[in-house]
Amino acid sequence: MTKRILVVGASGAIGSAVADALAASGHDVVRASRSSPEQVDIADPASVSALFARTGPLDGVVVAVGSVPFKQVDELTQADFRAGLENKALAQIGVAITAVDALRDGGSITLTSGVLARRPVPTGAAASVANAALHGYVLGAAEYLPRGIRINAVSPNVLRESPGYHSSFPGFVPVPVSDVARAYLDLLDGDATGHVIDV
Amino acid sequence: MTKRILVVGASGAIGSAVADALAASGHDVVRASRSSPEQVDIADPASVSALFARTGPLDGVVVAVGSVPFKQVDELTQADFRAGLENKALAQIGVAITAVDALRDGGSITLTSGVLARRPVPTGAAASVANAALHGYVLGAAEYLPRGIRINAVSPNVLRESPGYHSSFPGFVPVPVSDVARAYLDLLDGDATGHVIDV
Repeated sequence: MTKRILVVGASGAIGSAVADALAASGHDVVRASRSSPEQVDIADPASVSALFARTGPLDGVVVAVGSVPFKQVDELTQADFRAGLENKALAQIGVAITAVDALRDGGSITLTSGVLARRPVPTGAAASVANAALHGYVLGAAEYLPRGIRINAVSPNVLRESPGYHSSFPGFVPVPVSDVARAYLDLLDGDATGHVIDV
Repeated sequence: MTKRILVVGASGAIGSAVADALAASGHDVVRASRSSPEQVDIADPASVSALFARTGPLDGVVVAVGSVPFKQVDELTQADFRAGLENKALAQIGVAITAVDALRDGGSITLTSGVLARRPVPTGAAASVANAALHGYVLGAAEYLPRGIRINAVSPNVLRESPGYHSSFPGFVPVPVSDVARAYLDLLDGDATGHVIDV
């Protein structure tokens, strides 16, 4: 069955791979980002609302956005943690809240956290916090969303295709972005809710 | 050995029980809150810094502060999640960051999350997010703090002594606050770092 799916963050490494994989599976994919055909500024609630007003009813929403400051723990300020939470956790939560009204019954929301929620690196504490907060949202919201709407997260390891990040993840085994994209497809098609899929 | 320990949030149900238990164990306890002998406004970084300047060197810091909005999931706005993160997660992280410079080698920081990080309730999604964020900080920071300083969190269930909250936690078995206080004592005296103790 062809589903209509919005990918927010469709110009990023993960978002673009997910959008391509969804399109290759025959789905009707709406690509949104600051530079995509459907432009959106996820820091602006009005821009997010306008995006969903343009897309109309959806079967799925994928959110793959959010940058977080990377610094040694003793250099991270409270403001850095706040910025990471705002740009990644609260941005994705804001999209999820707005998505609920646009989703058809049983529709799916898939957020994007990251491996630093389960394994730390010296410069990654702000990312660990933002990713963990997203997991808290998935746990806290999943059972109480209306009309059978589901919410999950994919927590990707560092990508094989992003070698610039590999030195920040010493000892981590990079994963192909195709494996990451596959997790989003599985979540859209299954019945899972409240899950975090580690890839 | 008598340790000098600062309890931030010492007028709350948990903070006061922890402070009493520490004092009963012979420790030198500094009680801080908006209404304690050592006044502090944890929303104000200057007030937090001034508190640590007054206390001088410490062996342990306990942080038990933070209120979070409780509403049904479909009534929680992005601003509610932001408020919960600010008042509980970022407030405690801010104290922890400031605490590092005041702690002696091997000193201990113990934060306070809560049961909603591991089990949801219909009105608790913002608390799940804030508590999970604190767990992310413990994971992300523990291995990288200087001079052997340790950081852990206690994640308390609803308190037997706070019956007003019991109806918001249906099916949860309330725990005596003395059991919760015991967890803080164990963490101060042990070698643990990077742990979340569920009580």
